[in-house]
Amino acid sequence: MSTASRIRCADLNDRIMSAKEAAALIPNGVNVGMSGFTGAGYPKAIPQALADHIREQREQGTEYKIGVFTGASTAPELDGVLSEVNGMSFRIPYQSDPIGRKNINEGRMDYMDVHLSHLGPDVAAGFYGKISVAVIEVVGITEEGHLIPSSSVGNNKTWVDVADKVIIEVNHGQPAGLEGMHDIYQEDFLPPHRKPIPVLKPEDRVGTPYIKCPKEKIAAIVETNSTDRNSSFSEPDEASKQIAQNILQFFDDEIKAGRLPKELLPIQSGVGNIANAVLAGLNDGPYKNLTSYTEVLQDGMLEMLKSGTLKMASCTSFSLSPEANQELAENIEEYKDRIMLRQQEVSNHPEVIRRLGIIAMNGMIEADIYGNVNSTHVMGTRVMNGIGGSGDFARNGYLSIFMTPSLAKGGAISTIVPMVSHVDHTEHDVQVIVTEQGLADLRGLCPRKRALEVINKCAHPDYRDRLLDYFERATKNGRGQHTPHNLAEALSWHENFEETGKM
Amino acid sequence: MSTASRIRCADLNDRIMSAKEAAALIPNGVNVGMSGFTGAGYPKAIPQALADHIREQREQGTEYKIGVFTGASTAPELDGVLSEVNGMSFRIPYQSDPIGRKNINEGRMDYMDVHLSHLGPDVAAGFYGKISVAVIEVVGITEEGHLIPSSSVGNNKTWVDVADKVIIEVNHGQPAGLEGMHDIYQEDFLPPHRKPIPVLKPEDRVGTPYIKCPKEKIAAIVETNSTDRNSSFSEPDEASKQIAQNILQFFDDEIKAGRLPKELLPIQSGVGNIANAVLAGLNDGPYKNLTSYTEVLQDGMLEMLKSGTLKMASCTSFSLSPEANQELAENIEEYKDRIMLRQQEVSNHPEVIRRLGIIAMNGMIEADIYGNVNSTHVMGTRVMNGIGGSGDFARNGYLSIFMTPSLAKGGAISTIVPMVSHVDHTEHDVQVIVTEQGLADLRGLCPRKRALEVINKCAHPDYRDRLLDYFERATKNGRGQHTPHNLAEALSWHENFEETGKM
Ligand SMILES: CC(C)(COP(=O)(O)OP(=O)(O)OC[C@H]1O[C@@H](n2cnc3c(N)ncnc32)[C@H](O)[C@@H]1OP(=O)(O)O)[C@@H](O)C(=O)NCCC(=O)NCCS
Ligand SMILES: CC(C)(COP(=O)(O)OP(=O)(O)OC[C@H]1O[C@@H](n2cnc3c(N)ncnc32)[C@H](O)[C@@H]1OP(=O)(O)O)[C@@H](O)C(=O)NCCC(=O)NCCS
Repeated sequence: MSTASRIRCADLNDRIMSAKEAAALIPNGVNVGMSGFTGAGYPKAIPQALADHIREQREQGTEYKIGVFTGASTAPELDGVLSEVNGMSFRIPYQSDPIGRKNINEGRMDYMDVHLSHLGPDVAAGFYGKISVAVIEVVGITEEGHLIPSSSVGNNKTWVDVADKVIIEVNHGQPAGLEGMHDIYQEDFLPPHRKPIPVLKPEDRVGTPYIKCPKEKIAAIVETNSTDRNSSFSEPDEASKQIAQNILQFFDDEIKAGRLPKELLPIQSGVGNIANAVLAGLNDGPYKNLTSYTEVLQDGMLEMLKSGTLKMASCTSFSLSPEANQELAENIEEYKDRIMLRQQEVSNHPEVIRRLGIIAMNGMIEADIYGNVNSTHVMGTRVMNGIGGSGDFARNGYLSIFMTPSLAKGGAISTIVPMVSHVDHTEHDVQVIVTEQGLADLRGLCPRKRALEVINKCAHPDYRDRLLDYFERATKNGRGQHTPHNLAEALSWHENFEETGKM
Repeated sequence: MSTASRIRCADLNDRIMSAKEAAALIPNGVNVGMSGFTGAGYPKAIPQALADHIREQREQGTEYKIGVFTGASTAPELDGVLSEVNGMSFRIPYQSDPIGRKNINEGRMDYMDVHLSHLGPDVAAGFYGKISVAVIEVVGITEEGHLIPSSSVGNNKTWVDVADKVIIEVNHGQPAGLEGMHDIYQEDFLPPHRKPIPVLKPEDRVGTPYIKCPKEKIAAIVETNSTDRNSSFSEPDEASKQIAQNILQFFDDEIKAGRLPKELLPIQSGVGNIANAVLAGLNDGPYKNLTSYTEVLQDGMLEMLKSGTLKMASCTSFSLSPEANQELAENIEEYKDRIMLRQQEVSNHPEVIRRLGIIAMNGMIEADIYGNVNSTHVMGTRVMNGIGGSGDFARNGYLSIFMTPSLAKGGAISTIVPMVSHVDHTEHDVQVIVTEQGLADLRGLCPRKRALEVINKCAHPDYRDRLLDYFERATKNGRGQHTPHNLAEALSWHENFEETGKM
């Protein structure tokens, strides 16, 4: 690929430089808005050059750190390299890098975990201070200097809008055919002048295929040539397959009861292996011409598009294995009209999610007997990834489903506990909990009845009796009977795990 | 007032009957959708007649119970009388009746606590089974048989839509001048055919001033003549006044920083004494021509309308003291164009709340050092009222503020605790916490920094050192440092209170 085919705006050619030169434009101490969402569309070269710079500075005795704002998680080339040099003073809104996670959980990096639909508007409102620089991977730059997004959109529009300096990575390794798949809504995201977002069906186009960017803001252009480095999904195991079966059975029952149309409603599926396995299950099911309005398009959804189970998918990002990435690149013309990438304020917007009536299916770390869900914290203190968009979809969807195997860490952990050690989705936001053991339908049930439903349907037999025992003793302890608890014991399962390695 | 002026549809006259006769139309075991929202617009006669019937039946050996669905809390004439006879097998979505609360917390009544914006659509979707009967207070019935709502709208449209039988109470004691103040949106609330709700400003009218009801559904009409029996608010004490001052100062600072317009953004204010006191504070402030898009219009807002601080108010219900009720009734023509009552799906709709950029201010029971908020449970097990609309507004608003005095029960309780005993608003949904001690601005802070902000700004000095000590030991315990906790001790303050009467 030639430079000219990707950078069509010739008067920007003088801003082409090396990653090292571009990285030098990022001052110490600033907040930087970077592209990148679940391992797609993140800058590939500048973070590494910046990490090198930080290391050099440190060797010379200068602490050099930046705040990093993204769409969601990125990849070793961004979160990894910057975490390795402990170069981020602040990270928001989602991460999943092993080194970054360690930095956070050992107190070396400040991390803030927010709803993915909130960050863009809140930054634009000034709630997070100034974002000085944007570093954005694109597929190309149009004649007018507009940016053609890459394999994710995320918060890129906002970063370009609010930053003083925009640094671009033009990635020749991303399929040129991505051009035209994006839909960037251009209306104001700040009150009091916001308008309804006119998405009435997942396939509705409401914006432009590019991000507008004043040419004078573009401070540097770096050319790269590499693919997104996503990891593969693990093959669905028996538990995941059974979870998928339980959900399919539930859909069947809902259709029979007249509470879901035969073609379902637009689906959203979270990140992770379990979610991917459920998509595979759906693909084997009887459905045709489904739609999705989701955050990430992962392997399972690409397969559903291929098979015709899915008519079209709206998302903000791909999150594909290397094999699926190749499938997409090779057949991009066939997928083009059936996949749309939006900025994350829109892909996750409560207005649109509520209107369309999304079926939200998200993974979780643990649920308690009363239906509170923990998506983010291990044993109440260590963050795993973050809440991501799960709250956007669970709160506003037509149905909110959370799923997990009933055991973790080889059985040392029950994912159904007396009280969750951290709450991300409250009892008010969780309608269905599914494990390989079964499906608990919590709709219309008071907490005491929810407890029996969750324990009997979802808990692993190895832990079921102990949960029942907890619940029964709590209902007899003379304390409140709306949500019976033995407070002194409520978190003891987690405490046990910390002390003995087993709940 | 004559019957004819209120019941303008003469061919419905044959359905006028006594409350006792009407109550007899409600079969044992059914779900009943009743009007009523924070002590306004609830049926005044039928629940009592039904309670009498239930008592009689019980004396004859028949258990007779119904499920009761409302807008929100009601009053002694509804929740009180039905609770007294323990006549409700199921109650949803909000209550504040002392006897009802006792029934729930002693395990005699099932209660489910849901977001107020969710219940209507979820009932229409069939998630709560069949609602057979609607019992609705109205101001009158139009020539066409349509219902003119009373002092609250709540879920009345949905109850009328889904019920087979509609029983009407025409209350001559409600001001006839309420007619014309309501705005009932008539579009479908079920996917996949929902449209954008065209409310772009709080004052936008998008529906009809009445609830459509097929005449043949109207099974009975009962005439009543009494006012809403709301209790008075307590006079703002020093703590409430200081909370209001802290919020006003915050608004000032936000305006100066360019993060709020001078005329603010539409305000929402929760239920309770503290919220009312904050409105009084705002009324004494420098503001003119504010707007509100809120759930309940309480005394404080009526005074703001009177003084011109507030240009107009959109709500779903009044919640006025007897004195304020009289002020409204006597000057209703002056208020008419400046107050609009909508159904609660619309007053609390995430789409509209997000679009307008609401400033959400809600009371709470307790907050923890990391910014999680408990609005519903005392000591983790006993429900107080319910989440109401606080989640609708806090999650989707432009700013989400929670407020409480730093002490409760004469100092035996700190409302700032190491870990809340129940979570209704997660760390992801809480931006500002205010007590009379100060205001904690949590925007942009990681959990560890939030902890210091909350402890230093909001906790009462009597508890501050113990909170700091907890936090410091948790940061040194070798566990996760994203959200440091000592799990074995996290809920010990609540346990202390249960055992010794003091935290
Ligand atoms: C919760 C979440 C981590 C589950 O991920 P997943 O890949 O589906 O599930 P897995 O069972 O493979 O679990 C992932 C890891 O969490 C661990 N885990 C799961 N449950 C656990 C528990 N209760 N306690 C401790 N660890 C647990 C697993 O052991 C595994 O650890 P490993 O990577 O060291 O093997 C993931 O769904 C997530 O990050 N969710 C939050 C964000 C979100 O929902 N986004 C979707 C919006 S579109
Ligand atoms: C939380 C809530 C109960 C506070 O009410 P309030 O009237 O502002 O506050 P008060 O300080 O007067 O407290 C009310 C009661 O709760 C008690 N209370 C407050 N904090 C407490 C705590 N931490 N532990 C135990 N009891 C507590 C008070 O002592 C008081 O009890 P009493 O009635 O026996 O005297 C109320 O705001 C509420 O129900 N909120 C949830 C619904 C909501 O937010 N709706 C608004 C959406 S529009």
